[in-house]
Amino acid sequence: MTSSLKTLDVVGIGNAIVDVLVQTDDAFLASHSLSKGSMALVDEQQAERLYASVGPGLETSGGSAANTLAGIAQLGGRAGFIGRVRNDQLGAIFAHDIRSVGACFETPAAESGPSTARCLILVTPDAQRTMCTYLGASVGLDPADLDLDLVRQAEVLYLEGYLWDSEEAKRAFLAAAEVVRGSGGQVALSLSDGFCVDRHRASFQELVDGHVDVLFANEAEIRSLYETDSFEAAADQVRGRCRVAALTRSEQGSVVLSGQDTLVIPPYRLGDLVDTTGAGDLYAAGFLYGYTRGESLERCGHLGSLCAGQVVTQLGPRPHASLQDLVATHLS
Amino acid sequence: MTSSLKTLDVVGIGNAIVDVLVQTDDAFLASHSLSKGSMALVDEQQAERLYASVGPGLETSGGSAANTLAGIAQLGGRAGFIGRVRNDQLGAIFAHDIRSVGACFETPAAESGPSTARCLILVTPDAQRTMCTYLGASVGLDPADLDLDLVRQAEVLYLEGYLWDSEEAKRAFLAAAEVVRGSGGQVALSLSDGFCVDRHRASFQELVDGHVDVLFANEAEIRSLYETDSFEAAADQVRGRCRVAALTRSEQGSVVLSGQDTLVIPPYRLGDLVDTTGAGDLYAAGFLYGYTRGESLERCGHLGSLCAGQVVTQLGPRPHASLQDLVATHLS
Repeated sequence: MTSSLKTLDVVGIGNAIVDVLVQTDDAFLASHSLSKGSMALVDEQQAERLYASVGPGLETSGGSAANTLAGIAQLGGRAGFIGRVRNDQLGAIFAHDIRSVGACFETPAAESGPSTARCLILVTPDAQRTMCTYLGASVGLDPADLDLDLVRQAEVLYLEGYLWDSEEAKRAFLAAAEVVRGSGGQVALSLSDGFCVDRHRASFQELVDGHVDVLFANEAEIRSLYETDSFEAAADQVRGRCRVAALTRSEQGSVVLSGQDTLVIPPYRLGDLVDTTGAGDLYAAGFLYGYTRGESLERCGHLGSLCAGQVVTQLGPRPHASLQDLVATHLS
Repeated sequence: MTSSLKTLDVVGIGNAIVDVLVQTDDAFLASHSLSKGSMALVDEQQAERLYASVGPGLETSGGSAANTLAGIAQLGGRAGFIGRVRNDQLGAIFAHDIRSVGACFETPAAESGPSTARCLILVTPDAQRTMCTYLGASVGLDPADLDLDLVRQAEVLYLEGYLWDSEEAKRAFLAAAEVVRGSGGQVALSLSDGFCVDRHRASFQELVDGHVDVLFANEAEIRSLYETDSFEAAADQVRGRCRVAALTRSEQGSVVLSGQDTLVIPPYRLGDLVDTTGAGDLYAAGFLYGYTRGESLERCGHLGSLCAGQVVTQLGPRPHASLQDLVATHLS
C-alpha cells in the first residue's frame, strides 16, 4: 500500500470474546454432537450446561478479529479494535488485554443486558480446537457503537465473517466498510468458519465480488464459498474478484493469489503442535502487518505463516512469545 | 495412616483465588519494589493499578491450598475444599474448576462485599513467580462458613499459612483443626511464604509445636520460622516437633524428616522450567495423596516431587497433564 497520513494501520471489527480453553477428547465431542474444528453458536443455557460438563479451563482474551489486531499491535503495528463487552469481570479482562499490547480499544462496555461473550474452546489431543460461542454482549454491537473517526484513520479495515451472525453487527460492518473506502482505505475480510460461510454464502459472495480488497480464508471456507470439493477450483473462482486472496491450508502452508500471480508460502514449524486456536487469526495479523508497511505479498505471506506457526505451539490464541523477536530471528 | 471410615482423604482450607498470569521481566519487579519469589498483599486499588501496568494475562483458578486439593483430586484422591468466593464471574470460574476435577466445594459464595480474590502472578524469564494478591471475598471466610461435617470426614485437614493474614480465617482454621483432631484425623500445614512466616512467626512456632502432624515448608520458610541462615540448623530445630516435616528445596529436591529419619528425595526434571507457580502446592498434593493411602514416607516424597516437577513445566498452578498417567509412568 502507499503511505498516507492515516494514523492507524489496521482497525478491526469483531466479537469481543473471552475464551475458556479446556482439554478434552474426541469422545466428548461425539457425545455432544460437536463437529471438530468448527465454531457453533450456543445460547447462555447451552453454554452453562456445556461448561458444567467439562474439566478445568484456562481463560484468555480471544475473538477472531481481536486476536488479529492484538497480534498486529504485538508486531509493532498501529492497531485499533471495535467490539462490545459488558461492564463485567470478563469484559474488564478483555479490555485490559487488548489495550496492554498497545491496541486502541474504546468501544463503551454495555451497562446492561447479556454478559461478555465467552467461547468454550475444546482442545483435543490432536491439537485441533472446536468452539462453542455464547455471543452475549457482543451481538449488541450496532452502528451507534462505531467510532467512525477511528475507522477513517485506518489504512485497512479488517472484518470477521462471524459478525454476519448478528444483523446489527452486519449493518455496523457494512457502514464501516463504506467509510473506510470513502477515505482511501482498504477492506479486509476473514471468512471465519466453514459453517459461517454456509449460513451466509450469497451475502459473502456478493461482498467478495465488490467490496473486499484482501480476503482471508482457509481451505474449508473457500471451498464452501464456491461450493466445490476442490481447493484448486475454489482458488480459480476467487482469483480476480478481490485484490488479494490469502488462502491458508494448515500444514500445507498458504497460497496468496493476486491478479494472475500465485505465491505458495511454506508453513513454519516452530515446535510441537499444541493448540491450533488462533492460527488463522495470527496469519492475518502477520500478513496485514506486512501489507500496511508496503512489503511484497511474498513477505506478507511469510509474516503470516510465521505468526501462525508460533501460536499453534502454545495454548490459546494470543502469542505469549514476542512476535517482534520472532520476526527478527526468522525474517530479518 | 491407618484406614478408617472417613469419606475424604484431605480437606483443605484456604483462600479461593483466581490467578492472572503475566509474563514480565526483572526491571518491572524492581520498578514496583516487588521482591522476586514472594507473595505481597495488595488492596483493590493497588491491584487495579498494577494490573493496568502489565501485559496481557492468562486467567486460571489458583489459591495455594485449592491447588493442592485440586491436585489430590486429579491424582484420584478424595478431596474437599473450603474457601470463599463472591457470586461473580471469577467466583464461578473458581467453583467450576475445582469441582470439575472431582473435589467437593460447597462453601456458599458471598452475595455482597468484595469481589472474588485475584492474584497477579508475574512470571520472569527465569521462570520464577512473584505474586501480588488482592484477597477480596476470601478474607470473609469465618467459622460460620466452615462445613464441620466436611472437616470431620477428613483423614487430613490441610491448612495454608496465608490464612493467618486474616483474623476471621485464622479462627476458622483453628476451629477446624480441633474438630479434625477430635475425630481422629491429622492436621497438615503449609507455611506458604517467607514473608508470611515473618508476619506470624510466634503463632506458627506454637502451632507447629503442638497442633500440626505434617508440616510443609520451603527452605526460605523454615529458615524464617527459626530465624537461621542455615537450612540444616532449621531442619534440626523442626525435627520432632511434628510427626513429619517435608522441606522443599527447589532444584535440590526435598528432605522429609520423621523422628530421627531423614529422607532425601531427588527432584524430577520433566521438561524445560517454564513457571514455578504451584510447585510447593503440587508437592503437597502428591505427598498427601500418598500419605492418606498409607504409603511409605519415601514414596510420599517421590509423589510430591513428581507432581511439583510436572507443574513447573507449564504456565499456571493446576497441572494440564494427567497426574495419574504421570504416576503410572514414573512411579508404578
